[in-house]
Amino acid sequence: MTHAPVTGRPLKIAVLGAGVVGTEVIRALVTDSHDLGARIGAAVELVGVGVRDVAADRDAIVPTSLLTSNAADLVAGADIVVELMGGIEPARTLILHAFETGASVVTANKALIAAHGPELYEAAERAGRDLYFEAAVAGAIPVVRALRESLSGDHVRRVLGIVNGTTNYILDQMTTDGLDMAQALSQAQELGYAEADPTADVEGMDAAAKAAIIAALAFHTRMPLAAVAREGITTVTKEDVDAARDAGYVIKLLAIVEDTEAGVQARVHPSLVPVGHPLAGVHGAFNAVFVEADDAGELMFYGRGAGGAPTASAVLGDIVSAARHRAHGGLAPAESAYAAIPIAAAAEAHTRLQIRLVVADRPGVLAQVSTALADHGVSIEAVRQHDTPAARTHGGVELIIITHRARQADLDATVAELAELDAVIKVASALRVEGV
Amino acid sequence: MTHAPVTGRPLKIAVLGAGVVGTEVIRALVTDSHDLGARIGAAVELVGVGVRDVAADRDAIVPTSLLTSNAADLVAGADIVVELMGGIEPARTLILHAFETGASVVTANKALIAAHGPELYEAAERAGRDLYFEAAVAGAIPVVRALRESLSGDHVRRVLGIVNGTTNYILDQMTTDGLDMAQALSQAQELGYAEADPTADVEGMDAAAKAAIIAALAFHTRMPLAAVAREGITTVTKEDVDAARDAGYVIKLLAIVEDTEAGVQARVHPSLVPVGHPLAGVHGAFNAVFVEADDAGELMFYGRGAGGAPTASAVLGDIVSAARHRAHGGLAPAESAYAAIPIAAAAEAHTRLQIRLVVADRPGVLAQVSTALADHGVSIEAVRQHDTPAARTHGGVELIIITHRARQADLDATVAELAELDAVIKVASALRVEGV
Repeated sequence: MTHAPVTGRPLKIAVLGAGVVGTEVIRALVTDSHDLGARIGAAVELVGVGVRDVAADRDAIVPTSLLTSNAADLVAGADIVVELMGGIEPARTLILHAFETGASVVTANKALIAAHGPELYEAAERAGRDLYFEAAVAGAIPVVRALRESLSGDHVRRVLGIVNGTTNYILDQMTTDGLDMAQALSQAQELGYAEADPTADVEGMDAAAKAAIIAALAFHTRMPLAAVAREGITTVTKEDVDAARDAGYVIKLLAIVEDTEAGVQARVHPSLVPVGHPLAGVHGAFNAVFVEADDAGELMFYGRGAGGAPTASAVLGDIVSAARHRAHGGLAPAESAYAAIPIAAAAEAHTRLQIRLVVADRPGVLAQVSTALADHGVSIEAVRQHDTPAARTHGGVELIIITHRARQADLDATVAELAELDAVIKVASALRVEGV
Repeated sequence: MTHAPVTGRPLKIAVLGAGVVGTEVIRALVTDSHDLGARIGAAVELVGVGVRDVAADRDAIVPTSLLTSNAADLVAGADIVVELMGGIEPARTLILHAFETGASVVTANKALIAAHGPELYEAAERAGRDLYFEAAVAGAIPVVRALRESLSGDHVRRVLGIVNGTTNYILDQMTTDGLDMAQALSQAQELGYAEADPTADVEGMDAAAKAAIIAALAFHTRMPLAAVAREGITTVTKEDVDAARDAGYVIKLLAIVEDTEAGVQARVHPSLVPVGHPLAGVHGAFNAVFVEADDAGELMFYGRGAGGAPTASAVLGDIVSAARHRAHGGLAPAESAYAAIPIAAAAEAHTRLQIRLVVADRPGVLAQVSTALADHGVSIEAVRQHDTPAARTHGGVELIIITHRARQADLDATVAELAELDAVIKVASALRVEGV
């Protein structure tokens, strides 16, 4: 037996933060400690809960005697630190402190892992301790473990993820109930799926942080958050959704990470997905992550990507894993061990576009438009003309083009040239087509 | 650091079996050994491949010098034994031998784990070694790891799985292309999705073995294969598929494991699934496993459940995990540590039925039928009458009833009584409705 024997004393668990997720995790640690102990093969003990203000948090589920505002001391005495405060500081400093004092760390902090993952991985490795963060990406959906462990003998080529429930809810309502963006957003806010200030969700910032984490795991490399190309859903219109539907697509906000010839790449943008694609069937606030790997082929992981209980489920699974290692030896895969792979510029991505144009209603227009595409080496898969009310208010008709696959830079140049053509009254939208 | 230091020498890997999966695994061990070593944090070395007949397997990818028909000796010198022979013996004896000589084991052998899982878990635990078997359930889909590790801090209530690609292909073709069972089966055979003797698939034996494994993992208990209630798809007709579609359902062969008040239960049978359910969108030979857990809520894992490369992906992921433990210490979760939970009889399951009757076309028939259901405490959710050619050949009309949820025993008694009614010419079928 190479593993260390079970320690005689219970493993000491410190939880930092007693918000929605923290409360669920604390509840489980208090009420299910027997089951958790059986699964770990060693007893666990909640030794304290770090909160900002002990008086204010007095009515939480946790016994008042365990509450402390001295997080640093709490961390120093723990075997496992569970960071559920969110934000960069003081979470980052406390986690580094935890590793220094010999604790393993479980966190749900997506912003922190996306921004400071490599620093934290290295600190974990130096300490010979675990850093688990399943809950940082897509809540209870075990995509981090799948990429870190299950697919560790395979080569991931591409991941397409619906990783933000708010934007999926909004786009799904626009698709299935015919709402416009403003209606769908206000409905999402009424139902609690969107914040009063929805910027982080609708502008794709939340999804971009997850894309950075997924890229690092999928390709065993580093993906700075700043290198993730990002576009939100605010410009997506009901007309875009309708045009996509007519062509057999639904619009989803996708986080896409790809291993291309030019390097690895991560981007977030609204995307047309074929209705037959498994991601097209992901409705409401659900999340799903679609993985394409050399040997495994196509895999999809689906579930609730947010909420107190689903996030707590992921955190508790990580606590069991970290505790098993503390009790029996062992270490989570070291993410810092891998070499840096070049990051390809966003302009080097290859994709397809659905371009919606308002054009003059006269002969020769399609020839002019087709020539502009051909000049940039972009070929056309399908073209349709529509007489829409919106186009008529601009004194033209709508022309919808779906291109074949081409370089993003060439597609961008094509769209810019189309906007300059005298036959083109307006470029209504240009949306990427993915998952084909 | 509680974990053992990295060993100085490469980890010795022995592969038993050089069939479709074995060849893929051997290829990866030979050509990707550098990448695998980086992910493990230690070098690995393929030390031999056990085959029945060295001369016959000479043209395989593996160097002839590594081929041996002496599997026992090969096992005795290995750090990790990868069992890809299939069948119960000699696989079982060789795996027990591997644990005795201090090796960890990775296997794709579903029949063996379903029949002898507890014995093997115990042998692994006694030896302080790992037993990994991701590939035994649903190929590359990491459902074993999800249940064993990711959900280890949650309570799984129910799992519904499409775990047999052959039957999903057949039922999907009947649904989408209107084929009858014989046509769909022969198409599946032509395309290589079904064996010349399709019994193990179409009679649900393959799915039952997977159900036994899933139940054991989901509920941390033992589920003998003999306790899995099993019904195949051979009795499903085109008329059943059409009637289901009219009511908003598709028919899938589901492996269902449930934690009920009467105990845990595992069963395999054709099931009506609502078209809006994520499992309804699983087409062709794909597999998917839908998990309902207390905290995580609904999760689904989707992908290719068979084939050389997808199965090899799962095996390689397990090899990396087992090798990491050999190199750095640590141990996979011990499945033998859990107590036995009572197993509920199949008759105690609660489900709903779609009952298709051919009844006499005269007044009072519905009253007679409704009374029979009410007498057994079974209430009706929907009832439709159809004038079908098939019913007409029996001199009646078709009556399709969907019941509310009731005890299986009461539903069985209801169907038996319906068959005896003078108004009922024939019970055409009675299929369970699941996923609602």
